[in-house]
Amino acid sequence: MYGESLVKLMLALDVMDEKKAVLIAKETSEYVDSIKIGYPLVLATGLNIIDKIKEATNKEVICDFKVADIPSTNEKIAELTLNHADGIICQGFVGSDSVSAILNVGKAKNKKVIMVTEMSHPGATEYLQNVAEDMAKMADRLKVDGIVAPSTRPERLEEIKSIAKDAFVISPGVGAQGGNLSDVLNVLSENDYVIIGRAIYENENPKEMAKKYRMQM
Amino acid sequence: MYGESLVKLMLALDVMDEKKAVLIAKETSEYVDSIKIGYPLVLATGLNIIDKIKEATNKEVICDFKVADIPSTNEKIAELTLNHADGIICQGFVGSDSVSAILNVGKAKNKKVIMVTEMSHPGATEYLQNVAEDMAKMADRLKVDGIVAPSTRPERLEEIKSIAKDAFVISPGVGAQGGNLSDVLNVLSENDYVIIGRAIYENENPKEMAKKYRMQM
Repeated sequence: MYGESLVKLMLALDVMDEKKAVLIAKETSEYVDSIKIGYPLVLATGLNIIDKIKEATNKEVICDFKVADIPSTNEKIAELTLNHADGIICQGFVGSDSVSAILNVGKAKNKKVIMVTEMSHPGATEYLQNVAEDMAKMADRLKVDGIVAPSTRPERLEEIKSIAKDAFVISPGVGAQGGNLSDVLNVLSENDYVIIGRAIYENENPKEMAKKYRMQM
Repeated sequence: MYGESLVKLMLALDVMDEKKAVLIAKETSEYVDSIKIGYPLVLATGLNIIDKIKEATNKEVICDFKVADIPSTNEKIAELTLNHADGIICQGFVGSDSVSAILNVGKAKNKKVIMVTEMSHPGATEYLQNVAEDMAKMADRLKVDGIVAPSTRPERLEEIKSIAKDAFVISPGVGAQGGNLSDVLNVLSENDYVIIGRAIYENENPKEMAKKYRMQM
């Protein structure tokens, strides 16, 4: 019914209450393709929240843990997380061995490993943005499944996407952060995801907002 | 009784089983000053493990979460964690605003915020080590309580320490990773910590090993 759009809609479910998380996930599930949760929700509730969201929605759940440790610790975090979740997000700046440790777990469990190449908060200009292109090359070389690249500067997104050419993109920045959906849709392609969070979950009617974004797509 | 040493001993309790964690913490507590745990243990058991370790040992517990997200998410992670733990470790690479978000929580709760300036796994040469000195300057400027800097190259540790001059240092690399304790003790000073993990917790007799390291110090 809403299958015409090739670009997928990922709900960033950045709430910290279990009931609220499951309720919003369920209400919006008709219009979203994927649900992204972070450490705040998991620390507040436990990894089982993933199973509860999956049960309530039948959608994939991606853990945005920005994993950034040494290889052996990254491996343990990925093992525990991917016993529940369908994918995990890691940082690239800790280096290729740390990313590979997660990729090995992802391959063994047939789950998605997604690497951050660039972020869009002000502090990202200090270190991250200087090496974003190089990290996109690393993502391509290591054959990560997906990359995170922000929508706030579509021309930049296009550049990163052209480097990590085989990876799907998940792209935050539309909605509360001011990114323009139609500009972003021009850059994204099949199998990429637009991430929308606050504009949906902070609204009085998350279902209506999810539907609105889905219709726009 | 073991108070002559000014440099502190931090046990990296990188096990994933609750009973084992509490048992080793309790057995070794006479000889350690601080206990560092990571996401694998917390994901496997929950944040309450911190309270259990503190209750069993009466020692400070530091969460080595290498927090590496945008400021608003870093803040939420710090809030949840520092409701239990005495300190939290974050990455500097994501930028000063992300670190400041954690520092604000740490100040409000009177807890320790410790920033990674350098890591010693092979992948750390790709991005992190190129900006380690600059991150040490940032740590000094932001007045973080402590920094993480590895013991594997004592001359390098000395340099980082001289830049982030007001921060205490917690230093991994002694023991299983091959760093030499006496070389490191020459560089470290009062209030700094030597981190020892596997050499204690993987030994058949963790208590004896903790005592041995304490005596050497």
